[in-house]
Amino acid sequence: MSRFQIAPQVAGLASYQPGKPIEETKRELGLDDVIKLASNENPFGPSPKATVAIAEALSELHRYPDGSGFHLKRALVRHLAAQGHTKTPDELVLGNGSNEILVFMMRALATSGANMVIGWPSFVVYPIAGQAAGFEVRRVPLVDYRYDVRALLEHVDATTRLVVVGHPNNPTGTYIPKPDLQRLADGLRDDIVLVVDEAYFEYADAPDYMSGLDLERKNVFVLRTLSKAYGLAGLRLGYGIGDKALVGYLNRVREPFNVNALALVGGAASLDDTAHVERSVRENARERARVGKAIAELGFLVVATQANFVLVDFRKPAMPIYDALLKQGVITRPMSPYDLHEHLRISFGTAAENDRLLRALGTVALGTVRA
Amino acid sequence: MSRFQIAPQVAGLASYQPGKPIEETKRELGLDDVIKLASNENPFGPSPKATVAIAEALSELHRYPDGSGFHLKRALVRHLAAQGHTKTPDELVLGNGSNEILVFMMRALATSGANMVIGWPSFVVYPIAGQAAGFEVRRVPLVDYRYDVRALLEHVDATTRLVVVGHPNNPTGTYIPKPDLQRLADGLRDDIVLVVDEAYFEYADAPDYMSGLDLERKNVFVLRTLSKAYGLAGLRLGYGIGDKALVGYLNRVREPFNVNALALVGGAASLDDTAHVERSVRENARERARVGKAIAELGFLVVATQANFVLVDFRKPAMPIYDALLKQGVITRPMSPYDLHEHLRISFGTAAENDRLLRALGTVALGTVRA
Repeated sequence: MSRFQIAPQVAGLASYQPGKPIEETKRELGLDDVIKLASNENPFGPSPKATVAIAEALSELHRYPDGSGFHLKRALVRHLAAQGHTKTPDELVLGNGSNEILVFMMRALATSGANMVIGWPSFVVYPIAGQAAGFEVRRVPLVDYRYDVRALLEHVDATTRLVVVGHPNNPTGTYIPKPDLQRLADGLRDDIVLVVDEAYFEYADAPDYMSGLDLERKNVFVLRTLSKAYGLAGLRLGYGIGDKALVGYLNRVREPFNVNALALVGGAASLDDTAHVERSVRENARERARVGKAIAELGFLVVATQANFVLVDFRKPAMPIYDALLKQGVITRPMSPYDLHEHLRISFGTAAENDRLLRALGTVALGTVRA
Repeated sequence: MSRFQIAPQVAGLASYQPGKPIEETKRELGLDDVIKLASNENPFGPSPKATVAIAEALSELHRYPDGSGFHLKRALVRHLAAQGHTKTPDELVLGNGSNEILVFMMRALATSGANMVIGWPSFVVYPIAGQAAGFEVRRVPLVDYRYDVRALLEHVDATTRLVVVGHPNNPTGTYIPKPDLQRLADGLRDDIVLVVDEAYFEYADAPDYMSGLDLERKNVFVLRTLSKAYGLAGLRLGYGIGDKALVGYLNRVREPFNVNALALVGGAASLDDTAHVERSVRENARERARVGKAIAELGFLVVATQANFVLVDFRKPAMPIYDALLKQGVITRPMSPYDLHEHLRISFGTAAENDRLLRALGTVALGTVRA
């Protein structure tokens, strides 16, 4: 027992386990050359336009950021317009990563006795943040790694305030086909918010993939991030798009200066650098096809993915495989926090990094045969 | 009524009003040369060591930050040791500004029916964030702009979980003399957390000023920031120091990557640049004495301050004075959110900026005489 009277929903919280950092791995294993395929980062780095814009802003770091994100929101309005979505700045909320916006949403909606519904496995921050906000979190099992929309709707009841789906979903890489997403949105009462987390949106290219923005319902709230295809994970910038009344409440929960000044300028510059994101997405699509096929040929089960990572089912405990890859300088992601003990999640790197991954996985496959 | 079922403590929230940005003021008033003395920023800018370290880190922005803040916490341990305080990394929590740590604390401690006690006026984020977390917020009036420790303690009862004081206090610039601070800490039950917000700590030099760290009580939690004397407001970095059990809970409420990668490296570099912070504090002390005296000589009442700003009582509605200063390109801070309608809060700038402020205030003083 703590001497402090900690709120019960906080006292029981689990900790998030991040991907193992490159530097730490080098230090621990005495390796010189380590690649990280653990955190779904963009292997092509940040946009050069972003780093130039940031460098130019450094002399003004003693000033507080613009808490309203005036210029960045205008850039986002243009960006969304180019995707065919007419939005206004008051339909946008900016976050210190999209993770933070999820927390705002939960804090705005959680009341005593309220529940939120998620699929499972999905991004582990959903249940952690939901619990921290005070929600009863209902986890609805995915079926064959995909959301089961009928089951999700069956878990919704009078005290449900929030449904959160990853689309594409982390850690499975799967998405909700257009008719199913429409069915999910149509099946929810108007007062239940459907958060469609589109952190990996830019990578999705399936013909029946549809953004939550196309649902055009007031209770659909779409999350996007600059941490993935835009290569700005270190800068912390995400945004949410939704009904302006709802956005107004999120902005009140938001701390006045939650997005740092460099994220504001670097984010806007990144959105302008369409060549960088297009190249990142194109290379990822090519490697996604190539690496997925190669892993399957090694005899492991890969889940069809629309993201910049793949979930691999080894059909035996995955931690020895994780360790074997790590010793060869390849960091992947253990999936025990997702209740997937025989799986690893592997991000796609550059072609050279992926070649190295495949060689390392090859030795593991051979080891399996020999054992 | 909203179509959404917003949690009641969020539905009634007020918005924070930030200081007016320089750029916006130029645009609105058609001015070329505007100075901002509104947000208690360091007029000498960020440490050059910090901007160099940040520039070197830009190529790795596609990587997530180190969520544990390994290197920065080690730098903070050294920094605190140099101040005579032996701390370990597990007694430290890092925040996206110290504001965020305050929110973690409130979320960790707020339960239905619990209250927090603050002085008033104090930093307006205290009551806003406290309400958002679900606390009943008890505001205890300052007396002659100073905390009334006896009155604070009288407002503490069985359901009090948290007491927050600014030390020095924003917007008054006053502090709690050593014996009073000791009396406050000694008067609280062991399960009530006393947050001592020392955002302006570096600027305080009164002989009877004592940091909360010197109280050496497990329920005292000290907040510090790199936004003020360290000139990194735009980067968003604060830290909290307290009992490791309590820090453990705050770290669970914390989002995995709440501090951006550039804040981690820029913060550590800034802590090393003692010359920059010492110069900033020395210049502020000189200007604080000079400008305070000059404002008083213009016939306005200044509150004795230990911070990098001064609260001025004009003894008549302050908004016309604010507007008159703004038209001369000097941005100060209206105090209506603090229920101080006849006051402005004015940050100390460079000597040249302060000269300009004094000239502008001089015209206001003359205008008063003529009216």
